[in-house]
Amino acid sequence: MQELKERILSEGRNLGRGILKVDSFLNHQIDPALMVRLGDELARRLRDTRPTKVLTAETSGIAPALATAAALNVPLVFARKSPPLTMDYTIVREQCKSRTHDKMVELMVSTEYLRPGDRVLIIDDFLATAQTINALARLVVKVNAIVVGIGTVIEKEFERGRANARELNVPIESLAVIASMDDGKIIFK
Amino acid sequence: MQELKERILSEGRNLGRGILKVDSFLNHQIDPALMVRLGDELARRLRDTRPTKVLTAETSGIAPALATAAALNVPLVFARKSPPLTMDYTIVREQCKSRTHDKMVELMVSTEYLRPGDRVLIIDDFLATAQTINALARLVVKVNAIVVGIGTVIEKEFERGRANARELNVPIESLAVIASMDDGKIIFK
Repeated sequence: MQELKERILSEGRNLGRGILKVDSFLNHQIDPALMVRLGDELARRLRDTRPTKVLTAETSGIAPALATAAALNVPLVFARKSPPLTMDYTIVREQCKSRTHDKMVELMVSTEYLRPGDRVLIIDDFLATAQTINALARLVVKVNAIVVGIGTVIEKEFERGRANARELNVPIESLAVIASMDDGKIIFK
Repeated sequence: MQELKERILSEGRNLGRGILKVDSFLNHQIDPALMVRLGDELARRLRDTRPTKVLTAETSGIAPALATAAALNVPLVFARKSPPLTMDYTIVREQCKSRTHDKMVELMVSTEYLRPGDRVLIIDDFLATAQTINALARLVVKVNAIVVGIGTVIEKEFERGRANARELNVPIESLAVIASMDDGKIIFK
């Protein structure tokens, strides 16, 4: 998606060790109009998977997942990392390592909203190592629902997330695919 | 907003001690079409405050704040509770007690995105005790920006948030105002 690539090149910062800062429009400040277009494009590419629900993880996944769910007209569920007081029901949990915070986190979803038979489209801001996405997929399997597709805004191809999510055997769409971030550069595939 | 009140009555659960569970459409699962309408209505009521930015706190504030920011066509900034690896810059911090998690949390915002002179509209899912909203307002003041208004989806009037935010002296709009949750009931104002 050309508009996204241009924003990454003009505003993104390569902080080294594979860390891409896009806090000016995606991860801390959000450009709502861009977000709507990202969601529309993810929906267009993944509509054929016929999802009944979009699933993401808090926090940075929520905005692109909401935009995608709005375009597809299906509910969005976001996995929580800490249970609020209202989580008084049966939950399923999975652990994964967060690339963004460099620590282990627990993801939890209520079985009230992720249901057996749901066709789940997983949306996240980044596809890096796919640890978060694979943990979300395990939550889906735990409740006897089905992962039908994966969509992310930015893929860091060199962190092998696509290969690591291969066993899910579903379509994976990323709106910008970065092949390399060596030497302070940002090189698209 | 009648549609919202009907959803609260049909799907909301009074868990006691003032805790309202609306996880089926607002706090865990999100109805994207409803969220767009909530954002449109908050934008309609608060457009005259001429905001240049919408500010919220992760996590549950993000969806209504994004919908409002999209309707107003201004950027959204969400305060973070834990710093990601990309937060390598000057941040301002404030502490507050989370009503949802019943613990102290720290809210942090980068001074790259909350700027001196910004006219900031604070949006959140709930107006309860206003501790989060007042902490967000202190962040705004710290960077020499101005709070111009407050918008929330659901106000629990009996927790006195409106009174607690009175010193900000700005318009406060809530789309559903609950007067009482005694005896397992949900009574609107």
